[in-house]
Amino acid sequence: MIENEYYSEENLGPHEYLKLGDFPLIHGQTLANAKLAYRTHGALNANKDNAILFPHMWSGTSKSMEIFIGEDRPLDPSKYFIILPGQFGNGFSSSPSNTPAPQNMGAFPNIMIGDDVVAQHRLVTEVFGIEELQLVLGWSMGAEQTYEWAVRYPNMVKRAAPFAGTAKTTPHDYIFVRAHENALKSDPAWNDGFYSSSHAVEVGLKRHAELWSVMGLCPEFYKQETWREIGFSTLDEFLTGFWEAYFLPMDPNNLICMAWKWRHGDVSLHTDGDLTAALGRITAKTFVMPFGNDMFFPPSDCKTEADLIPNSEYRLIDSLWAHFAMFCMNEQDKKAIDANLRDLLAS
Amino acid sequence: MIENEYYSEENLGPHEYLKLGDFPLIHGQTLANAKLAYRTHGALNANKDNAILFPHMWSGTSKSMEIFIGEDRPLDPSKYFIILPGQFGNGFSSSPSNTPAPQNMGAFPNIMIGDDVVAQHRLVTEVFGIEELQLVLGWSMGAEQTYEWAVRYPNMVKRAAPFAGTAKTTPHDYIFVRAHENALKSDPAWNDGFYSSSHAVEVGLKRHAELWSVMGLCPEFYKQETWREIGFSTLDEFLTGFWEAYFLPMDPNNLICMAWKWRHGDVSLHTDGDLTAALGRITAKTFVMPFGNDMFFPPSDCKTEADLIPNSEYRLIDSLWAHFAMFCMNEQDKKAIDANLRDLLAS
Repeated sequence: MIENEYYSEENLGPHEYLKLGDFPLIHGQTLANAKLAYRTHGALNANKDNAILFPHMWSGTSKSMEIFIGEDRPLDPSKYFIILPGQFGNGFSSSPSNTPAPQNMGAFPNIMIGDDVVAQHRLVTEVFGIEELQLVLGWSMGAEQTYEWAVRYPNMVKRAAPFAGTAKTTPHDYIFVRAHENALKSDPAWNDGFYSSSHAVEVGLKRHAELWSVMGLCPEFYKQETWREIGFSTLDEFLTGFWEAYFLPMDPNNLICMAWKWRHGDVSLHTDGDLTAALGRITAKTFVMPFGNDMFFPPSDCKTEADLIPNSEYRLIDSLWAHFAMFCMNEQDKKAIDANLRDLLAS
Repeated sequence: MIENEYYSEENLGPHEYLKLGDFPLIHGQTLANAKLAYRTHGALNANKDNAILFPHMWSGTSKSMEIFIGEDRPLDPSKYFIILPGQFGNGFSSSPSNTPAPQNMGAFPNIMIGDDVVAQHRLVTEVFGIEELQLVLGWSMGAEQTYEWAVRYPNMVKRAAPFAGTAKTTPHDYIFVRAHENALKSDPAWNDGFYSSSHAVEVGLKRHAELWSVMGLCPEFYKQETWREIGFSTLDEFLTGFWEAYFLPMDPNNLICMAWKWRHGDVSLHTDGDLTAALGRITAKTFVMPFGNDMFFPPSDCKTEADLIPNSEYRLIDSLWAHFAMFCMNEQDKKAIDANLRDLLAS
């Protein structure tokens, strides 16, 4: 375990925890004394039929998705019981940063998206006794978890809303994300994951932030200086004040754990590599919602998958914020996302 | 100066050299005993009106562009006198790797695209006595030099063919290329440019190759496993056998010198930052030819510039090889490029 004030409840909100015990992982290892951190909004009704599950993206925590919850919003906590499960590696659920030896830091086992979803299934069924979710939704790695839910437990997912993510990681996305991991590892202070403190890996975190600045947005974003929308006045200020400021407080092993999981996402593991068969299992009404200009998940990759999902609609959301449209940096992106969620929940 | 067998005439062909003497640079320094390496094909006719200038891309040498020259090709050496000038930093023209102290290695001065073009102008006018070029063409950084020629010496350029490049580097391309430089510099062996041998910086060269693999092609290329077209049978083989094999023999300072020059390319330096005014100077018949899926020079960026060039045509060449369509890995790309050059030379 390693001290890092970033992953504190003071900073990122209180969590509840489901103790998972010794948790068997898809890759064969067992995660000792595993835990799943989560937050909830609203109340589960007597019929237990008003639940929404909203897993979060890479590098985030349950709190990250709360910008979408509100009484005037489609994710209305006066109507729905909204569960925000943390993913393994997020610093609150079992993670390299909070797991004791011998599975600490660089020795933390490799986790798959399916491991997260199995843990979340225990939360949903054992803790809450829910049999069907009105909606599973998520962005980026949250979309990967959404697809995993819809394929693994089709009878439990009534509606699915994967934003800017894929059911099976493409080869380009795979090498893209691996390059980000390697940027962190390039810092000699990383030391195979056994560093003296998260902050000692500052050079690696900065290199990693630089790659995100290049690949996380899109050319037109920079050409139009869209960063002015959030108050920056020069490109350099944006690179340090946004990208470096976001990543520097984080734990490199946590980021690497989640990135590895990201690039190994693949629902066709359920069907011997047959993606058509895997996506064909989905019974949820599904809105596939890529973001225009997304360099991680180009809309064409999402369209290919949408075409394989029986009851799906392909709904492109165009934004110069590209992959980061989900941050709702402007009112337009927020409205577009909400409008689609409203349509889906009404269906 | 540093030993590197890659930059030998045995390896990359014999060159002729124009001694430039002490060469004043745009950024104020003087490059001592500068030299411009070049190769030619065909013969200059008596009227000196059959010359074509074909500068090369980043990381290349004059030899790189010879795949476009042939008696059955638009660049026919039985008809045209084709000059292939080397750019500063290419290992044959003055470069960090071949310049003696005190301007050697990490102390080599910053060079601008305009410096290359001024040196090439001396070659064209002083050595060959040419007053007008039938065509200036180039790919990527060669396109940057083409634009610089057309803006700086409009009366000398009858036709211009910039492939997959821009007249003014966009902000995204700037941070993109800087990230590549930083990958080289991330290797402690780089040592501010004063390494013991080029090959000592192997880790940096490998990181750099990795970023190129991600950003140099496009998602669809990897999804369709287009690398099979050139004989690779796995993705990993392609990453090492193509990307690493290409870059590992090269000199890191040379690559950094050219990359810095690339990202500072800007013809609007001639017009106080007014790109419309700069491109408005061009009198050449110009074919602006971006490559589809190019992540460095998205077609939309090239279209914006084409619209500012008086006598231009925008001709998109679509290829899964994206930025690397110019390598003509398949017959289709070669035919598309040749067809456009034939049209332009006939106009």
